[in-house]
Amino acid sequence: MRPTRPLRVTVWNEHVHERREPSVKKIYPDGMHAPIVAGIERELGDSVAVRFATLAEPEHGLTEEVLAETDVLTWWGHAAHDEVRDEVVARVHARVLDGMGIVVLHSGHYSKIFKRLMGTSCALIWRSDPGGERELIWTIDPSHPIAAGVPQPIVIPHQEMYGERFDIPPPDELVFISSFEGGEVFRGGCCYTRGAGRVFYFSPGDQEYPVYHQREVQRVIANAVTWCGDVSSPNDLPSAREGNRQHRRRRRRHRIHRRGPR
Amino acid sequence: MRPTRPLRVTVWNEHVHERREPSVKKIYPDGMHAPIVAGIERELGDSVAVRFATLAEPEHGLTEEVLAETDVLTWWGHAAHDEVRDEVVARVHARVLDGMGIVVLHSGHYSKIFKRLMGTSCALIWRSDPGGERELIWTIDPSHPIAAGVPQPIVIPHQEMYGERFDIPPPDELVFISSFEGGEVFRGGCCYTRGAGRVFYFSPGDQEYPVYHQREVQRVIANAVTWCGDVSSPNDLPSAREGNRQHRRRRRRHRIHRRGPR
Amino acid sequence: MRPTRPLRVTVWNEHVHERREPSVKKIYPDGMHAPIVAGIERELGDSVAVRFATLAEPEHGLTEEVLAETDVLTWWGHAAHDEVRDEVVARVHARVLDGMGIVVLHSGHYSKIFKRLMGTSCALIWRSDPGGERELIWTIDPSHPIAAGVPQPIVIPHQEMYGERFDIPPPDELVFISSFEGGEVFRGGCCYTRGAGRVFYFSPGDQEYPVYHQREVQRVIANAVTWCGDVSSPNDLPSAREGNRQHRRRRRRHRIHRRGPR
Amino acid sequence: MRPTRPLRVTVWNEHVHERREPSVKKIYPDGMHAPIVAGIERELGDSVAVRFATLAEPEHGLTEEVLAETDVLTWWGHAAHDEVRDEVVARVHARVLDGMGIVVLHSGHYSKIFKRLMGTSCALIWRSDPGGERELIWTIDPSHPIAAGVPQPIVIPHQEMYGERFDIPPPDELVFISSFEGGEVFRGGCCYTRGAGRVFYFSPGDQEYPVYHQREVQRVIANAVTWCGDVSSPNDLPSAREGNRQHRRRRRRHRIHRRGPR
Repeated sequence: MRPTRPLRVTVWNEHVHERREPSVKKIYPDGMHAPIVAGIERELGDSVAVRFATLAEPEHGLTEEVLAETDVLTWWGHAAHDEVRDEVVARVHARVLDGMGIVVLHSGHYSKIFKRLMGTSCALIWRSDPGGERELIWTIDPSHPIAAGVPQPIVIPHQEMYGERFDIPPPDELVFISSFEGGEVFRGGCCYTRGAGRVFYFSPGDQEYPVYHQREVQRVIANAVTWCGDVSSPNDLPSAREGNRQHRRRRRRHRIHRRGPR
Repeated sequence: MRPTRPLRVTVWNEHVHERREPSVKKIYPDGMHAPIVAGIERELGDSVAVRFATLAEPEHGLTEEVLAETDVLTWWGHAAHDEVRDEVVARVHARVLDGMGIVVLHSGHYSKIFKRLMGTSCALIWRSDPGGERELIWTIDPSHPIAAGVPQPIVIPHQEMYGERFDIPPPDELVFISSFEGGEVFRGGCCYTRGAGRVFYFSPGDQEYPVYHQREVQRVIANAVTWCGDVSSPNDLPSAREGNRQHRRRRRRHRIHRRGPR
Repeated sequence: MRPTRPLRVTVWNEHVHERREPSVKKIYPDGMHAPIVAGIERELGDSVAVRFATLAEPEHGLTEEVLAETDVLTWWGHAAHDEVRDEVVARVHARVLDGMGIVVLHSGHYSKIFKRLMGTSCALIWRSDPGGERELIWTIDPSHPIAAGVPQPIVIPHQEMYGERFDIPPPDELVFISSFEGGEVFRGGCCYTRGAGRVFYFSPGDQEYPVYHQREVQRVIANAVTWCGDVSSPNDLPSAREGNRQHRRRRRRHRIHRRGPR
Repeated sequence: MRPTRPLRVTVWNEHVHERREPSVKKIYPDGMHAPIVAGIERELGDSVAVRFATLAEPEHGLTEEVLAETDVLTWWGHAAHDEVRDEVVARVHARVLDGMGIVVLHSGHYSKIFKRLMGTSCALIWRSDPGGERELIWTIDPSHPIAAGVPQPIVIPHQEMYGERFDIPPPDELVFISSFEGGEVFRGGCCYTRGAGRVFYFSPGDQEYPVYHQREVQRVIANAVTWCGDVSSPNDLPSAREGNRQHRRRRRRHRIHRRGPR
């Protein structure tokens, strides 16, 4: 049933903080994408083929060709949301509607692509203290594939606080809710469908803390990649095509139209 | 558009702890229902007519007549869930499907009626320490009528901890999420539709603490009563009846059936 | 609890077909907005204050002032979606996130504002035959306030076919599903929340047929206006402000931020 | 990530009509379960191990042992819903909450187990004419795994009409909507989560028509089996257990409880 070729994953990273700020460089000497890629590969093995792309590359590394060969994209950005070109955003948006999955991480909540997919401001409240504070990530949908194999709760010792009200549409599926030492809560694991594509937002991951080196976080990202890639196109069954032909005959009397790209 | 008669509310209280335990009696000398009734009346004034009923009454005070005259029922129970007779549960269930709203409070999560409406175990994790712990109730859907006029967050100084995983179906609308001093989170304000009736679960309210004397909690309960009562029956528009008659004529060629009570 | 002033409604109409095409002018001599306004006023009486605005007016009649005084906007457009200026779309979008309701009608599914709120292509399949075909609108959520007082089904004798796949996010609440003589189905009554605002999409209403003169359709639009206007801002309760102050004190030790317009 | 052993499927069939009524026996000489089993096996091959069970067997063939070895159960019943023993229903219910998937077919909407999982009456309108009428099943969520490889629409030449209002809770995911020649619509492909288990309701399949011999219908059932089996238990990751131990230490100061079976 499922495609036998590996799932093609592109890990996109703004890659600005790691080059500018020594404190971040120390945590992520090869860029934040390095442990994200490593985690996906460790968890999913031969069933995935992972590459990465960054803002500084031509077309941010997200050409038509790259996107056409990407089943699931992950997105981390923060300092340079505005530098992402609108035509690349439109291209990514179109690919999501066409079936590509997207996993949006942490401060990516405020990226152009996430706001465009959500239709809301995607604003939130936040607090960034030196040293951060403990985040607990609670699974509220334990049978969800994205929660497979994670502890209850995931403990992140030091993290920036993200709190409600988070201005997103009500998630189609809510998998995780976080709490912080200050008492705030946050819907930090949210599933959406947009067009034929699946979207997952996952909140952990400030650049100041080694969150993406944490195995449980990598596990969730790998699970999310699998879930976002688990979509299917209808109409590919032989007997289905016959059914369709019969239906088209019936409708030939009418003029029938499909409006828009899909 | 809306009925001009007052919304008829019945506040149901098990009323066991208040009679047996001095610590609870001290907080609720007239029963927990007293401040619940008073809060609804203060907030909603002439637009409601409120009565109460308790477990010890014949048929628990929930006769066919009482339910027929109830638009919204609120439910608090804890020590005596098993003493609620199955036929009364079936009667309340039928009335909810028929359009009566129900606001289920705190330990009512484990009542027969709530489990029947949900179809799940409704289990949760909990912790009850002497003195309790602080609960913060965060609004995540600020435009929802149930959140009207409440602070962000509602602070409950002393409360029993209720935590996830709370085994309920995904709420149709999630209005509040709580956090506790221990770091746990809880989906404490959940909306459902069952049949033609609306259901709201609201978590605050352990008998050991004066939670129902707190104005913000009363406000939420009043809002929930209003929301649960804001349902409507179709087919009562004159022109609609004509439309229906026309449609029935078209269908008279067939035998058409309605299966079940509605 | 509810505001005592009337709900302020602005009916927006592109108003292009009615001026250009004799067949449409004949059905809607005063513009399509005329029966929409009349229907809302008949159904809701003194509880609303209705005005209209059209594309040809300066700023399409949707200035900052008009929007600031609008609680619910209705939107019909078709031939001139592209002529709606982006800054007006951004202004309407911001007002919806800020709490203004919006009722999007028929071909408005392809308007800039609806696509922006949804984050998808909003494409659908359609068929337009001379004379149209019968549409039946089935209520699937009979207790929903938007379905109050409508027949099961609403029969629209002549209408353009709109069919699935309709590329929208899964509705937060699905109230109506239509069928057409060709056998197609369509999710024609869809509720969403975006930011603090409510969105309702309602499919009937091609310019070639007198759909907006039909009483049941007017009834649904009036119901939708009421529902979209039934939102509330938290934090306006006196005791709530005290609670907030207490909470702010607790948080003053931290730097806390709100990102974005809300 | 996924279990390497085959998914264990039990096809449950009331098996009453096929033995009593010659017209049904002719269509399903080996029972309706035979083509259902054959379809699942053809579509899913070695990745499943399928058995069947029927009402007449001791404990209806659904002993503790059988259920413990079942990952996904399919359910068809109609004439003898009342003969299904309550203790077996309770056992199946508990297994679903514990993670077993269940695919409920056609008239199974009125089975004890489905009503218990839903919490509503599960009533609908229906019409049964000699010869039946054409049903068209439209995919409204084309990327959903359950819609993989099916035509748009699936055409069922002869079928009993099932129509709205169908008294179920709003589905967590709505995959298919049917229309009938009489113009009725029906939410015929509905996903739910209950406890740790997934539920899918699929409407085609009256005993008077050879619906379960139809390849597209078999394909949907096979897809649904796969989807219902795609759940996971958290807390099985080694590093997760460490995280949990750390968290438990933190909580040891408190008395913490889990209420109920899960």
